[in-house]
Amino acid sequence: MRLAVIPGDGIGPEVVGEALKVLAEVVPGAEITKYDLGASRWHSTGELLPESVLTELRQHDAILLGAVGDPSVPSGILERGLLLRLRFELDHHVNLRPGRLYPGVRGPLADPGEVDMVVVREGTEGPYAGNGGLLRKDTEQEVATEVSVNTAFGIRRVVADAFARAEQRPRKHLTLVHKTNVLEHAGSLWSRIVEEESLAHPDVTVAYSHVDAATIHLVTDPSRFDVIVTDNLFGDIITDLVAAVTGGIGLAASGNLDITRRNPSMFEPVHGSAPDIAGQSLADPTAAVLSVALLLDHLGERESARRIEASVAFDLATRDQNNPGSTQAIGDRLAALVSS
Amino acid sequence: MRLAVIPGDGIGPEVVGEALKVLAEVVPGAEITKYDLGASRWHSTGELLPESVLTELRQHDAILLGAVGDPSVPSGILERGLLLRLRFELDHHVNLRPGRLYPGVRGPLADPGEVDMVVVREGTEGPYAGNGGLLRKDTEQEVATEVSVNTAFGIRRVVADAFARAEQRPRKHLTLVHKTNVLEHAGSLWSRIVEEESLAHPDVTVAYSHVDAATIHLVTDPSRFDVIVTDNLFGDIITDLVAAVTGGIGLAASGNLDITRRNPSMFEPVHGSAPDIAGQSLADPTAAVLSVALLLDHLGERESARRIEASVAFDLATRDQNNPGSTQAIGDRLAALVSS
Ligand SMILES: CC(C)[C@H](C(=O)O)[C@@H](O)C(=O)O
Ligand SMILES: CC(C)[C@H](C(=O)O)[C@@H](O)C(=O)O
Repeated sequence: MRLAVIPGDGIGPEVVGEALKVLAEVVPGAEITKYDLGASRWHSTGELLPESVLTELRQHDAILLGAVGDPSVPSGILERGLLLRLRFELDHHVNLRPGRLYPGVRGPLADPGEVDMVVVREGTEGPYAGNGGLLRKDTEQEVATEVSVNTAFGIRRVVADAFARAEQRPRKHLTLVHKTNVLEHAGSLWSRIVEEESLAHPDVTVAYSHVDAATIHLVTDPSRFDVIVTDNLFGDIITDLVAAVTGGIGLAASGNLDITRRNPSMFEPVHGSAPDIAGQSLADPTAAVLSVALLLDHLGERESARRIEASVAFDLATRDQNNPGSTQAIGDRLAALVSS
Repeated sequence: MRLAVIPGDGIGPEVVGEALKVLAEVVPGAEITKYDLGASRWHSTGELLPESVLTELRQHDAILLGAVGDPSVPSGILERGLLLRLRFELDHHVNLRPGRLYPGVRGPLADPGEVDMVVVREGTEGPYAGNGGLLRKDTEQEVATEVSVNTAFGIRRVVADAFARAEQRPRKHLTLVHKTNVLEHAGSLWSRIVEEESLAHPDVTVAYSHVDAATIHLVTDPSRFDVIVTDNLFGDIITDLVAAVTGGIGLAASGNLDITRRNPSMFEPVHGSAPDIAGQSLADPTAAVLSVALLLDHLGERESARRIEASVAFDLATRDQNNPGSTQAIGDRLAALVSS
């Protein structure tokens, strides 16, 4: 197993360190190559993602990323120049974000019920296409546009993936989240493709929710959701809410998948680089560890993935919620559980 | 006071009836004209918003709308052809949505703290501009676009309004919610204008939150927000979440304001027509009643507006939360409180 690791900025290196500690217990022979990308490289060399690095990254089975972003770098530079560039160059069309409220975890909801869903967020088009512009910049007549680009090709592959995932789950339920009543063109295309794919998956029940209503359901009745399929931007928004509802982004893992396997998929915690707590051993590495489980699952190491998830579940059920321990202590506990 | 009333569909007529009952207590001489717009008019005549009706609506001081929408009408027809058309024709650029957790109200959060914010949602541009299209419709090569159009003119007027509102509030705090790290063009324009307006309002402190992070804050720490200013689509999404957090859309009021007063402003509960509970006296008219308070406030009837709000606050603090009474019973209680 050849893994590329991008520790990144802020708490990225800390949580990645613990994630690799856990990985070493289940895949002792993994070949790890670290890539120094992020704020400090940009500061010292002006580079975000050199072609040579991209070429090397492509030669790995998967990529593990900590987090990128630092207040010293203008907003958007690292996001667009590194993180989104990786997702687009490596055709990460399925942005997979499970949302599970583990027993013992206290989220913000008084009465959440059982929450176990997975969001399949489209990852390579929509409002993220980078297709917009400015007219009469810096004047009172300035016009800024952002074009959401949606293709039948791009939507079908994630919708098909979402149906396939729904089919594997006990409830076999899929919800399309969009805003079809306002975004009529993109909405009609998403709706058509969900309808068409549902014919090929008659055992999956299908629901629809406007994105605004979905935010209500996510806090009043999150257990109604099983698989959600949605557009890049709506997915960005609701997966942060899902993460909050299931105990916070300290626990939320994600996979950026090229399901054709032409390019390595990339796994990352949903949280950012949290520069305010960096270097203090305060970050919870659980999301990074769960991202390793997604990575192993994607590479077919199902046993090892389940083992990590079960260890996380056990640790979350038994840890002191108010004082879960340092980054390293949590990593040590998880590594011990995984190897036991 | 000349008011146009659009009861609309589903529970719209029921809640509007109670709202007018309450209004009659504070403004006995209001001249009310009802307009039959919505699903049944569309079914019987094919009309959504005839020019003649639009012309008549313009001759009123304000508009009160119940709700539009019915499952018998294809999604989007009434939304775009009636509701959004009214907002755009009447230049309702400030979509004002207060979010207050009233004492006694149980929302979904275990520990919400004090919540008292107001969202100033842009109402006439952004992704709602209706600017998109389809290429190669119904083929595997279909491309659907949606163009978010943002102008310095359009943004400045709502940002200026949001700052003016922040200045009137004890905390004098304003948060811009956007997604500047991805939507770089629209994001840079919004950021520039907020920066410029902040110079003119040095007593207002300014914060920024990405829309995804804002959904987390809204469920983990909603009291951090005072005034939020945001784009049309982000505003649509987060105000439903704000409504949920503050006890549900049964309590959420909104005003669609033309702050230049060239056109009548329009007031409506945030909830929809809820056809599943229509005609059963199950709908809570509180959001419609609070919308009347916003209407009176806008027309300069501050005393009456405060009176209604105080009555609602009293009723919410004392009502049986599990059994608040029928639509009419709640309306009767509020009318009695307002006149007492
Ligand atoms: C950092 C940012 C570009 C990114 C996104 O918008 O996709 C993040 O919010 C996420 O959800 O992974
Ligand atoms: C019904 C719909 C068009 C509308 C909107 O998207 O603005 C509604 O969700 C709202 O928030 O008032």
